[in-house]
Amino acid sequence: MAGTMLAAVKTKPQSGAVELLQVPTPAPKPHEVLVRVKIASICGTDVHIYDWDEWAQARIRPPLIQGHEFAGEVVELGKEASLVNVGDYVSAEGHIACNTCYQCRTGNAHVCRNVQIIGVDRDGAFAEYVTLPEENLVVNPANLPLEMATIQDPFGNAVQTVFSADVPGNYVAIFGLGPIGLMTVALCRAVAAGKIFAIGHRNEYRLKMAEKLGADYVLRSDAGLPEAIDRETEGRGVDHVLEMSGSPEAFNLGLKIVRPAGGVHVLGIYPEPFSVDVSSDIVTKGVSVHGIHGRLMYETWYRMAGLLTSGRLDLAPIITHRFAFKDFPEAMEVMKSGRAGKVVLYMEEGA
Amino acid sequence: MAGTMLAAVKTKPQSGAVELLQVPTPAPKPHEVLVRVKIASICGTDVHIYDWDEWAQARIRPPLIQGHEFAGEVVELGKEASLVNVGDYVSAEGHIACNTCYQCRTGNAHVCRNVQIIGVDRDGAFAEYVTLPEENLVVNPANLPLEMATIQDPFGNAVQTVFSADVPGNYVAIFGLGPIGLMTVALCRAVAAGKIFAIGHRNEYRLKMAEKLGADYVLRSDAGLPEAIDRETEGRGVDHVLEMSGSPEAFNLGLKIVRPAGGVHVLGIYPEPFSVDVSSDIVTKGVSVHGIHGRLMYETWYRMAGLLTSGRLDLAPIITHRFAFKDFPEAMEVMKSGRAGKVVLYMEEGA
Amino acid sequence: MAGTMLAAVKTKPQSGAVELLQVPTPAPKPHEVLVRVKIASICGTDVHIYDWDEWAQARIRPPLIQGHEFAGEVVELGKEASLVNVGDYVSAEGHIACNTCYQCRTGNAHVCRNVQIIGVDRDGAFAEYVTLPEENLVVNPANLPLEMATIQDPFGNAVQTVFSADVPGNYVAIFGLGPIGLMTVALCRAVAAGKIFAIGHRNEYRLKMAEKLGADYVLRSDAGLPEAIDRETEGRGVDHVLEMSGSPEAFNLGLKIVRPAGGVHVLGIYPEPFSVDVSSDIVTKGVSVHGIHGRLMYETWYRMAGLLTSGRLDLAPIITHRFAFKDFPEAMEVMKSGRAGKVVLYMEEGA
Amino acid sequence: MAGTMLAAVKTKPQSGAVELLQVPTPAPKPHEVLVRVKIASICGTDVHIYDWDEWAQARIRPPLIQGHEFAGEVVELGKEASLVNVGDYVSAEGHIACNTCYQCRTGNAHVCRNVQIIGVDRDGAFAEYVTLPEENLVVNPANLPLEMATIQDPFGNAVQTVFSADVPGNYVAIFGLGPIGLMTVALCRAVAAGKIFAIGHRNEYRLKMAEKLGADYVLRSDAGLPEAIDRETEGRGVDHVLEMSGSPEAFNLGLKIVRPAGGVHVLGIYPEPFSVDVSSDIVTKGVSVHGIHGRLMYETWYRMAGLLTSGRLDLAPIITHRFAFKDFPEAMEVMKSGRAGKVVLYMEEGA
Repeated sequence: MAGTMLAAVKTKPQSGAVELLQVPTPAPKPHEVLVRVKIASICGTDVHIYDWDEWAQARIRPPLIQGHEFAGEVVELGKEASLVNVGDYVSAEGHIACNTCYQCRTGNAHVCRNVQIIGVDRDGAFAEYVTLPEENLVVNPANLPLEMATIQDPFGNAVQTVFSADVPGNYVAIFGLGPIGLMTVALCRAVAAGKIFAIGHRNEYRLKMAEKLGADYVLRSDAGLPEAIDRETEGRGVDHVLEMSGSPEAFNLGLKIVRPAGGVHVLGIYPEPFSVDVSSDIVTKGVSVHGIHGRLMYETWYRMAGLLTSGRLDLAPIITHRFAFKDFPEAMEVMKSGRAGKVVLYMEEGA
Repeated sequence: MAGTMLAAVKTKPQSGAVELLQVPTPAPKPHEVLVRVKIASICGTDVHIYDWDEWAQARIRPPLIQGHEFAGEVVELGKEASLVNVGDYVSAEGHIACNTCYQCRTGNAHVCRNVQIIGVDRDGAFAEYVTLPEENLVVNPANLPLEMATIQDPFGNAVQTVFSADVPGNYVAIFGLGPIGLMTVALCRAVAAGKIFAIGHRNEYRLKMAEKLGADYVLRSDAGLPEAIDRETEGRGVDHVLEMSGSPEAFNLGLKIVRPAGGVHVLGIYPEPFSVDVSSDIVTKGVSVHGIHGRLMYETWYRMAGLLTSGRLDLAPIITHRFAFKDFPEAMEVMKSGRAGKVVLYMEEGA
Repeated sequence: MAGTMLAAVKTKPQSGAVELLQVPTPAPKPHEVLVRVKIASICGTDVHIYDWDEWAQARIRPPLIQGHEFAGEVVELGKEASLVNVGDYVSAEGHIACNTCYQCRTGNAHVCRNVQIIGVDRDGAFAEYVTLPEENLVVNPANLPLEMATIQDPFGNAVQTVFSADVPGNYVAIFGLGPIGLMTVALCRAVAAGKIFAIGHRNEYRLKMAEKLGADYVLRSDAGLPEAIDRETEGRGVDHVLEMSGSPEAFNLGLKIVRPAGGVHVLGIYPEPFSVDVSSDIVTKGVSVHGIHGRLMYETWYRMAGLLTSGRLDLAPIITHRFAFKDFPEAMEVMKSGRAGKVVLYMEEGA
Repeated sequence: MAGTMLAAVKTKPQSGAVELLQVPTPAPKPHEVLVRVKIASICGTDVHIYDWDEWAQARIRPPLIQGHEFAGEVVELGKEASLVNVGDYVSAEGHIACNTCYQCRTGNAHVCRNVQIIGVDRDGAFAEYVTLPEENLVVNPANLPLEMATIQDPFGNAVQTVFSADVPGNYVAIFGLGPIGLMTVALCRAVAAGKIFAIGHRNEYRLKMAEKLGADYVLRSDAGLPEAIDRETEGRGVDHVLEMSGSPEAFNLGLKIVRPAGGVHVLGIYPEPFSVDVSSDIVTKGVSVHGIHGRLMYETWYRMAGLLTSGRLDLAPIITHRFAFKDFPEAMEVMKSGRAGKVVLYMEEGA
């Protein structure tokens, strides 16, 4: 596959600075695989890198090809790779685990001490081709649509969060109605949550999407929330809070509305430490707070394939915008506007 | 409430022998409650008693009013009862726990050593009124239809079985397509099982119902089953087997088709001991077999209320026959025919 | 049992103000039981009440007989009580649950919404006699020494904390070396923790006790701790942190030293909210934080009886001071000094 | 390392036929490692192969070097191996997993569909050198004695069984007092089981060892057992049964003596299918039966290291016989006599 390919390259350590360039097509190492990317999607992480915020400045070393959400086809195997075949329809887990640390050796590779993330620590999928360790590839069911295949990385976050809780028949509150929060609303509906409270802030666009995707109640994250929850749950509170907003206020409101012995499952990332009433809100209530990171490798992926091909879950409304790869800058602007669900990029001209 | 009431009384220790009689209305003891029955439904257990099989001969002491599936209204409180109010719309857990044995004191009252069952060990709900310990009553949501309220006892068996497994997104096989098996099919669909294999035997009526309720595959319990499962699961097997048939062949087939480290969840009751290949089918596969009995008291009931009022689960097609209470014998015949889902009895003439 | 008894009565809403008085012996209600107290022990909560701190001012309504840790003998049954017998050797769960809230009905009575605590919300055990609901009594094994029987309430906190974690063969850090922390050290040793890190502060007396009770490492809660843990665990961190100090610094240090996907189990009570780095210390590490309150009713009590009579756990060194009941003020002073393990009171003169 | 080594080779498909021969020292493949064996121990599986029973006839293809329990030193790395270093003190997981099947990809490699076992499906450790995939090696703590290091494979079976149950403070019955059963007795004592019932058959030697290792009760597996258990547990039954005998009678007795909602954890292998009273003994009691196979990879190994170096567990009495490798035939005879705990082989003359 020697030759060149089109790629969106973060060329300089500054805001923006992503250029569509022809670069050499990468070659797979012995246990790696070369994948032709057919579709990719934009994650909030990609926006952080684009905007060159503090996190990005500390972590990213340009030049870098971003992108970790994608689907494509295996076109070349490294000389010792044997887990997949040329022609396989694949997506990939973006966390590359070291396989040697305590976590990796005990079934918790999703919190590997030495993790490398594609599109962050090495070149990613906003390109015509990408290389990956063979073990990170997941062969998609043949009947999984491309637009579902590409969003498995963020949907996997939703899946790991929801199944760290016990949702069916129970009351659940979802804070944060970005793309992952919205997928979570749809998933909670698909697994028959008893009551679904979708809790947003100011973004009307996304509050409306939450309603459309199956929330029973769409509420604002404000001081009146505990009373509203109390009323709609006959004083019981919610059994589980799924915190995906990254807002300290939401985290603390979540602790207020969860019932004693309930669970708060946190995927949100907060800009800095903040004050928590550990005694009243966690200890004496007997509440558990669960940090959620990545996806269980690879249990979450099998479960996702089951959910997405079952016909019992419809994530199609999440995809609100589609662009050709060459219109990457425009796609990024839509993503940043907040008036979008999930934004996907088709890599081939005619697709 | 002194006076008499109409009741279906098993009068003699023989097959049939159920007479519709006027008997004294019972009075609630201090911690009991008197409920006016509005609807009741017929369980397989009621058929065993009606037919006076071996189990019934060993356990039942006529005269007895059968029936443990019902919904109604609280009309009188015993003088120390305070957990419910007159006028409450209720159903009831039929297992009366002793509250003193090890199981009762450690959260496992569903397997109480000294359990008494209503309609089996004491008078039940095939009558205009029934008394129950106040703690056994469950107040139904106001918007729960009567026909859903009455089937919570058997649906609770389905709920306890399904949630002892991990169904969403996974592959599940349900053996036995009686009313509880059919509810289980519907429930697995409602919680987004990855693939649902409904496995019956000869009863075409119920195989068709399973398909209608959401099974992805409707198969026969025969020697060809493992190969079929293998093919449809790409050699993985099913993650969980829900065995509700009471057939030794089904139990053993379930062990064959479950994947290593999977679970077999058994609600079925078998007429006698039978041969099991414990080494090959349980030990070296690392499989777990879970006996399921009753309903978790009262976690299962809260979850059921959540499921039944969520709008995400439709059990209505399960109710195939409706009778006035006075037509009890006819209702029993339909139930015995096997060509029925759930058969309900309306206690009031004009209902 | 009409007559009077000696009791330690908090007579006024101020610091101290506990008087040894003759008061009427209480009479058990229908489902209650009268117990003759043989031994009692002093809890940190009793010190809070004695010192009349903010919490006490908000919660306690004098006059009140304090005390919730005790053992004794049943001497009279309420007229409907039947769960225990006169003459039984008993202790008691101090949390009186309502039996009607969601938690009580689903196996989580330890976080009952309407809990009443003996010696806090109603008269307690610092008296010759105490009344309790019959369901709260736990019959002790005949061979359980009095001094072990009386400390089951705090030891139950330790048991619930340790068994919410997975300690055997794993690395565990215990913050806070008060009486419960010290019992926890002994318990972790008894269940074969891989490495036990006991972490205290300035109290040399208790650091020495921790060593004596089986800690492998006795360390100070300071900035150098993470490095020390890192070194002694080959960079793995501890698998579980048991936080019993009530110090915000300890809580946050615990989050630093726990390994990714590990657990922090918090029994400590903090005077006020404090800052937590939720993103770095909980979310991206995939850590779970578990609030621990009370004791599982009554699973914890059965397990305790098993542990205390197995001969595999020696808590005797925890009891450092013994007083006659009449010397209550002196006992309280020792307790307040911090130079004590557990302080017990013998109620009978000649004992 | 080209050259020859001494090995115990099963040369022909018949009983006995193990010869001590000089054979070529194996060379490690790219991801393999060559280990110099210092100590090995004999497993029941080795006896099956030696005796050439039905299982062996179906599985083993001579010539084969047996042996999967050992400890030694890494002496050469395959050219791509990097997980261990030359000089490391190691033992190894004997199950070589495929890393591609559903189980391997979801944390259940111990029941890999395509497992290969060393000393069974490929040459093993009854030799001066052995090769293994690098990922199967476990680096032992420096202070772990050789005789403990070599028995980690069978002890790992005990560990996986005990920790699939909830033993501390609870009542536990262990059926089968072979080496693994005896280790299990010691382990249950080390984690403070409430009461330990060790249940054997006719072998007085091992009944005595069970007592010495910490069983509270040593009983015979006969018809009187349920009554004895009932008496010693005040009618509660045991909370967990650990079935390691491979006797159908023991399996069924285990189901009788386990309390409702308890667990039966089965490591034993039975010669053929047998009759089980599934309804009465599993379903209506709400009991769970767990098949146990291998060791969790590699969680069990880390826990073992923690247990074995904690000083809280003494397995030394399990090692009853020590032989030089050249006396392999004699060692095998002792093992077959049943009058032994664990039999170890020292590979070096002067050791």
